[in-house]
Amino acid sequence: MSHRIRVAIAGYGNLGRGVEAALAQNPDMRLVGVFSRREPSSVKLLDSSTPVYAMADIEQYQDDVDVMILCGGSKSDLPEQGPYLAKFFNTVDSFDTHAKVPEYYEALDQSARDAGRVAMLSVGWDPGLFSLNRLYGEAILPEGETYTFWGKGLSQGHSDAVRRVPGVQSAVQYTLPSENAMARVRAGEQPELSTREKHTRECFVVLAEGADADVVRESIVSMPDYFADYDTVVNFIDQETFKTEHSSMPHGGFVIRSGNTGVNTKQTIEYSLALGSNPEFTSSVLVAYARAVHRLARLNDIGAKTVFDIAPGLLSPKSPAQLRKELL
Amino acid sequence: MSHRIRVAIAGYGNLGRGVEAALAQNPDMRLVGVFSRREPSSVKLLDSSTPVYAMADIEQYQDDVDVMILCGGSKSDLPEQGPYLAKFFNTVDSFDTHAKVPEYYEALDQSARDAGRVAMLSVGWDPGLFSLNRLYGEAILPEGETYTFWGKGLSQGHSDAVRRVPGVQSAVQYTLPSENAMARVRAGEQPELSTREKHTRECFVVLAEGADADVVRESIVSMPDYFADYDTVVNFIDQETFKTEHSSMPHGGFVIRSGNTGVNTKQTIEYSLALGSNPEFTSSVLVAYARAVHRLARLNDIGAKTVFDIAPGLLSPKSPAQLRKELL
Repeated sequence: MSHRIRVAIAGYGNLGRGVEAALAQNPDMRLVGVFSRREPSSVKLLDSSTPVYAMADIEQYQDDVDVMILCGGSKSDLPEQGPYLAKFFNTVDSFDTHAKVPEYYEALDQSARDAGRVAMLSVGWDPGLFSLNRLYGEAILPEGETYTFWGKGLSQGHSDAVRRVPGVQSAVQYTLPSENAMARVRAGEQPELSTREKHTRECFVVLAEGADADVVRESIVSMPDYFADYDTVVNFIDQETFKTEHSSMPHGGFVIRSGNTGVNTKQTIEYSLALGSNPEFTSSVLVAYARAVHRLARLNDIGAKTVFDIAPGLLSPKSPAQLRKELL
Repeated sequence: MSHRIRVAIAGYGNLGRGVEAALAQNPDMRLVGVFSRREPSSVKLLDSSTPVYAMADIEQYQDDVDVMILCGGSKSDLPEQGPYLAKFFNTVDSFDTHAKVPEYYEALDQSARDAGRVAMLSVGWDPGLFSLNRLYGEAILPEGETYTFWGKGLSQGHSDAVRRVPGVQSAVQYTLPSENAMARVRAGEQPELSTREKHTRECFVVLAEGADADVVRESIVSMPDYFADYDTVVNFIDQETFKTEHSSMPHGGFVIRSGNTGVNTKQTIEYSLALGSNPEFTSSVLVAYARAVHRLARLNDIGAKTVFDIAPGLLSPKSPAQLRKELL
């Protein structure tokens, strides 16, 4: 199986671990190594037979890797690592700071073109699969509105904000789409929806010894930017319940295009995800797109790429003829 | 606006009329003519200022059309028209005889390559958007099962079969997905579902004068191939109700991928359509892909193509930079 796609992982947190697991489900690929800024011997992989290397040595491996999957964070890791690693590898990442996509794209494109590499950015579900569905929706139904709802899902940023409230020992925050708002959209009303109308927020909080529940609740629900614009429910639970019921990372959401054709005929396209684990799913999307990146690189179709640039057939291990026969 | 994409329609039934309406929603395209086998003066368009030409003269217009949208039927029209018209035009069609796709693809590909044209086949929602979602689903979640449910929707073939039953004056048949089967799939059970378990069928029948309802019902529900393998409900209504409540052509359905990642984490991807008019929606998909066909032709990327070969960005009138900024 020496012709399998040789994949490596840069950064081994939740996402890197998810990529390792996803690669094991794709027999046309193999994981040739993991790169970490930690001391390599301290990094414990799911499969201990895979080598771990120091991130500082990564340039030495440029001939041994077909696609490098970047599993660092969007805030500080990827803006540095992306353009740097695109000089040596074909890359794919999950950069998700929507507002900074144009700037990051330019930096990646420059670096990848100079080196004759493919660098794919913003792969995952949002940005990623949700972006695709926003595009398909408005291209097919140009007269209409697109709605994105998130949840039910754990929000890392909002959970962190709750944990910083004095008197909170442990906390998670879930974002929930409003059933009422979704029903109006599905009915073809094309409503204008305020922030408060689209989502609600639910917190599960373990109080610190001696903390006042009412004071904690008020501090949370009135927090600007994070909660003040939403209807927020705060539930208090004990540490044991917190551990058993709130330690997974579910997420998901909906992209709904509501449009009209002909003489006011209603047409609705809906895409939804219900994810048991957000990082494991994002990893699975990264791995499918790594296959496409490898194929583009072999065609010498270089530069920065997004999901909008990738013909769907490139994601599948099946041949074009097999896809037409089995899936069309 | 002389740089608008010049589109023509070959065949003017429900689908052709839908394409005419959809083109009016896309300002970067214009309809330059309709070709029909009927006497041109007898064909009444939505916009009477568009010229209608005889199908027999179509070859004469090869320099005046960027993309020809083929609106004939899959059974007898397209197998003839597709390969013939691909000699003169870039084409897009909605060929939907799943079993004959490989054969039709080969004929189109040969014809289009010889002429240096693009010929896109099987565009619509199934085949088409549903095919795409079957592909994305299994590429992203390789360990899992894909389920396609149709409905609620009017089935033309089954309605015709009911109308042929003696004693039936008028009839429509709707296919309905089983709520119970969908719930099991969404719960991640990955069940094996029989034909009877996936869909039910509902008929609305106007009896002919003097016909016996019980005899008609029995003839319908026991009909081999069409109804014998399903749970079928037959409702008898009067002609007036038939006309007011059953003259539109709604359809839709669901593609659900239920998969596992990591250590048995459940992940679900669901795509659904709720269509007020099946032909108008199919037409809208054809028009979006006509834009992609035009772009491929300009890149000289010739031959037969399916939805699997088309990078999503090619469907949108927006530039790649605009798409990244607004939709990613």
